[in-house]
Amino acid sequence: MELLKKVNKIKKIGTFDLEKQLMIIAGPCAIENEEQMKTTAQYLVDHNVHFLRAYPDKPRTSPYSFQGLGSQSHAIIREIKEQYPLFIVAELLNLEDLSFFNDYVDVIQIGARNMQNFALLKCLGAIKKPIILKRGFGNTIEEWLMAAEYLLNFGNDQIILCERGIRTFEPLTRNTLDISSIPIVKQITKLPIIADPSHACGRSDLVKPLSMAAVAAGADGLLIEVHPHPQMSLSDKDQALSFSEFNSLLDDLKALAGLRGLTF
Amino acid sequence: MELLKKVNKIKKIGTFDLEKQLMIIAGPCAIENEEQMKTTAQYLVDHNVHFLRAYPDKPRTSPYSFQGLGSQSHAIIREIKEQYPLFIVAELLNLEDLSFFNDYVDVIQIGARNMQNFALLKCLGAIKKPIILKRGFGNTIEEWLMAAEYLLNFGNDQIILCERGIRTFEPLTRNTLDISSIPIVKQITKLPIIADPSHACGRSDLVKPLSMAAVAAGADGLLIEVHPHPQMSLSDKDQALSFSEFNSLLDDLKALAGLRGLTF
Amino acid sequence: MELLKKVNKIKKIGTFDLEKQLMIIAGPCAIENEEQMKTTAQYLVDHNVHFLRAYPDKPRTSPYSFQGLGSQSHAIIREIKEQYPLFIVAELLNLEDLSFFNDYVDVIQIGARNMQNFALLKCLGAIKKPIILKRGFGNTIEEWLMAAEYLLNFGNDQIILCERGIRTFEPLTRNTLDISSIPIVKQITKLPIIADPSHACGRSDLVKPLSMAAVAAGADGLLIEVHPHPQMSLSDKDQALSFSEFNSLLDDLKALAGLRGLTF
Amino acid sequence: MELLKKVNKIKKIGTFDLEKQLMIIAGPCAIENEEQMKTTAQYLVDHNVHFLRAYPDKPRTSPYSFQGLGSQSHAIIREIKEQYPLFIVAELLNLEDLSFFNDYVDVIQIGARNMQNFALLKCLGAIKKPIILKRGFGNTIEEWLMAAEYLLNFGNDQIILCERGIRTFEPLTRNTLDISSIPIVKQITKLPIIADPSHACGRSDLVKPLSMAAVAAGADGLLIEVHPHPQMSLSDKDQALSFSEFNSLLDDLKALAGLRGLTF
Repeated sequence: MELLKKVNKIKKIGTFDLEKQLMIIAGPCAIENEEQMKTTAQYLVDHNVHFLRAYPDKPRTSPYSFQGLGSQSHAIIREIKEQYPLFIVAELLNLEDLSFFNDYVDVIQIGARNMQNFALLKCLGAIKKPIILKRGFGNTIEEWLMAAEYLLNFGNDQIILCERGIRTFEPLTRNTLDISSIPIVKQITKLPIIADPSHACGRSDLVKPLSMAAVAAGADGLLIEVHPHPQMSLSDKDQALSFSEFNSLLDDLKALAGLRGLTF
Repeated sequence: MELLKKVNKIKKIGTFDLEKQLMIIAGPCAIENEEQMKTTAQYLVDHNVHFLRAYPDKPRTSPYSFQGLGSQSHAIIREIKEQYPLFIVAELLNLEDLSFFNDYVDVIQIGARNMQNFALLKCLGAIKKPIILKRGFGNTIEEWLMAAEYLLNFGNDQIILCERGIRTFEPLTRNTLDISSIPIVKQITKLPIIADPSHACGRSDLVKPLSMAAVAAGADGLLIEVHPHPQMSLSDKDQALSFSEFNSLLDDLKALAGLRGLTF
Repeated sequence: MELLKKVNKIKKIGTFDLEKQLMIIAGPCAIENEEQMKTTAQYLVDHNVHFLRAYPDKPRTSPYSFQGLGSQSHAIIREIKEQYPLFIVAELLNLEDLSFFNDYVDVIQIGARNMQNFALLKCLGAIKKPIILKRGFGNTIEEWLMAAEYLLNFGNDQIILCERGIRTFEPLTRNTLDISSIPIVKQITKLPIIADPSHACGRSDLVKPLSMAAVAAGADGLLIEVHPHPQMSLSDKDQALSFSEFNSLLDDLKALAGLRGLTF
Repeated sequence: MELLKKVNKIKKIGTFDLEKQLMIIAGPCAIENEEQMKTTAQYLVDHNVHFLRAYPDKPRTSPYSFQGLGSQSHAIIREIKEQYPLFIVAELLNLEDLSFFNDYVDVIQIGARNMQNFALLKCLGAIKKPIILKRGFGNTIEEWLMAAEYLLNFGNDQIILCERGIRTFEPLTRNTLDISSIPIVKQITKLPIIADPSHACGRSDLVKPLSMAAVAAGADGLLIEVHPHPQMSLSDKDQALSFSEFNSLLDDLKALAGLRGLTF
């Protein structure tokens, strides 16, 4: 982990100050239609949340599950980007979409299943964009940091790590949020780290306490699934928060962030 | 989980109010000598901590590791109990010690390795003392609640659950604190739940962030290893906090507990 | 593991030669009634199987599940022992039953949930009977061997280890038979090791392939649930073999054991 | 798993008959030089083993570990293919190598880390070559079968599954070979399944017992690391068998395969 120990923390994304603000990314699991995304975008702007989750593709265990709109959603992203003062966060699955992502996406996610897709890491190492690198659900912290080292080694030092739960024997949650990884990452590296409680637990009723835990443990931000109508979501509907549930979470987060001297 | 869904939360231990106060239990891994325990007891009294960890026995993987002083430590417990206004918390390993525990111990712990020792559960179900029931490191939440159901079924409803980490593939921590278990237990039952970050991670440097996470997630208390001289501890020395580290934790906890309307 | 590296393998149980014969233990999950046990005993005698699983108690996750007949089954065990030329294998749960076990049980099992019940280990260390020590489903091989070291340290060197599966994230089997533990134990110690495929997988349809795998990997025996009428079993009915399924397994085992120079 | 339940087993690879022969694939972890590969190839031909492991690339956790010779090894593969009557097995990591693989590789492996690289699955679904699909070390059997369903759905039905161990809490082996997955896959599908004991355990001393266990449990073949000089191997040297160790394994396998009516 030679480069990892030397590299400095990414400090800003545009005007957003990662050292003074909690990085909250919110939005639906995947882009479903224009109205869904505009409603969400307007809601975030109104509530002082700066990052929109806007995913064209959704990697799915089954080939028969909803896979996302793919490139058909690109027009929606373009419009959102023109009309709302939000940073666009999206996962890159296909290298053929790289040029679109370069032009319209502000923060590119490498998903849990691709954490050790070394061909993808090499390719994203070469671009100049902040990268969210999710931990694989079957991977150790050391392997995760080594994946970050690949990005560094290929030239990209704007890395944000994201803890999203590991696989254990406990069946009441989809995965087990490894809360310890947050302080461990902070000890070993200077990289910012955020948490994704929605994918970690797979249950909307646990998103608030896990979000609070992550921020209390030192997380620099959160990636949260929010949907205008969770029960109509085409994927992962059990884990998406409604707007009113998200409101309540934001209230509690504000007080907690205050203890750490952070705002949104 | 018939009884578990009906039973009410234990509300008080003596004058300690579990609904208004964060239950902080602190002390060394095991009783080593009188001076160690008195120094710790005085420190806790001075810092407004009400529960002393005072364990005569220490279950050890190897028969050649320090096993605790056993019944030789009973005199120390008796003296502490007379001289300091503290509640004594201790783990019961041998049923022959039950009468001593009944007389001198205020809260009896069932350790992780004994969570499914049904003979012990039946026996402790019959006594009238608060019980801390630790989750086995290889056990699911459902099995843990079923162990509580054994206690209830045999007559003891003064149960406090304690999350202490589960075994996963991650090697950088001894176990993985399953932070989700805290809100899940709160949804399914009315029982109080505390967390033991010291045993969960096995590293003193992670105790503070994990403690903060547990309280932010809704825990009713913490069980923390504190030792006057951690490096001289005869067991688990890597996870014990020094007094000054514990001070720093208490300061942060005070502010966080305040957000939930709790004091110590 | 000082004693473990020195101790010699138990070579005989009565006239049964552990170095030349595959140790097959079979019978129902728990004793339910006299007829069930006598039918099974006669069947085993007819098929040259020498060890009868005859468990008075059944440790159960829930206090409301069938717990075994307990001491009411002792009369059945006594009768079986008088009438059939079989070795009786049973799990000891309550120390108050020790005297009965000393008189009527030939091989005493320490169950998975009690592998680290150190009070029980110390007590069984002091008796002169072969002990089957099951691996805890949440325990490492090293911890298991350390539990054996407790038995040795307290005086009992007639130890037979039993691999019965560990807890993993895979939901299609109850546990995951850790087949590697068999050759590892053989490398580190001279102790015999058997496998319990029934509890490992929890599915009767996998018992045959897992039994074959265990013997091919070097296991010295098998512990298998067999019931005259599996669907009427009061516990673990999904994992019990019928007599005809067990017949088919014995046929295949005979050929495989032959490759290792073993008979039944 | 609609297609998976309908599709028939691949029966032949060239003249190799998967229904009558045990599919043994052997060779070094990665191609290191021409001499290493030719020595190995000649050895396999002499011992009646038909499949050569010849991997140009080696996915590595760290960017600083030996990554394989990459396309520099293609000339070696070409030469081997011309000079030895062996089937070439290789892992595809980069889609830009697809045309070379189409021309010179007989069986293409999708590695454990790429099991849910859906972009790769779609691409290999479209070619006409047998595919070995390894189970991800953090993946369930169901997810693995769903990855196979992707291949089927995109047009490739020549699928061979490969169990290579899952991640558990046991530290004495790199992973835990999930022996149960072999009979489970055979129940749910008609696909052939092989095992990779070398990667499962990471220790050469366990390769023989695990190989025997896999074949006894019903595996259709084995993927085994063999190196002319294991201690000089540039990657995974602790798990490679020497030729003499491999000889001894082949002897035992021959007898065991005979019980199932299989030859090599």
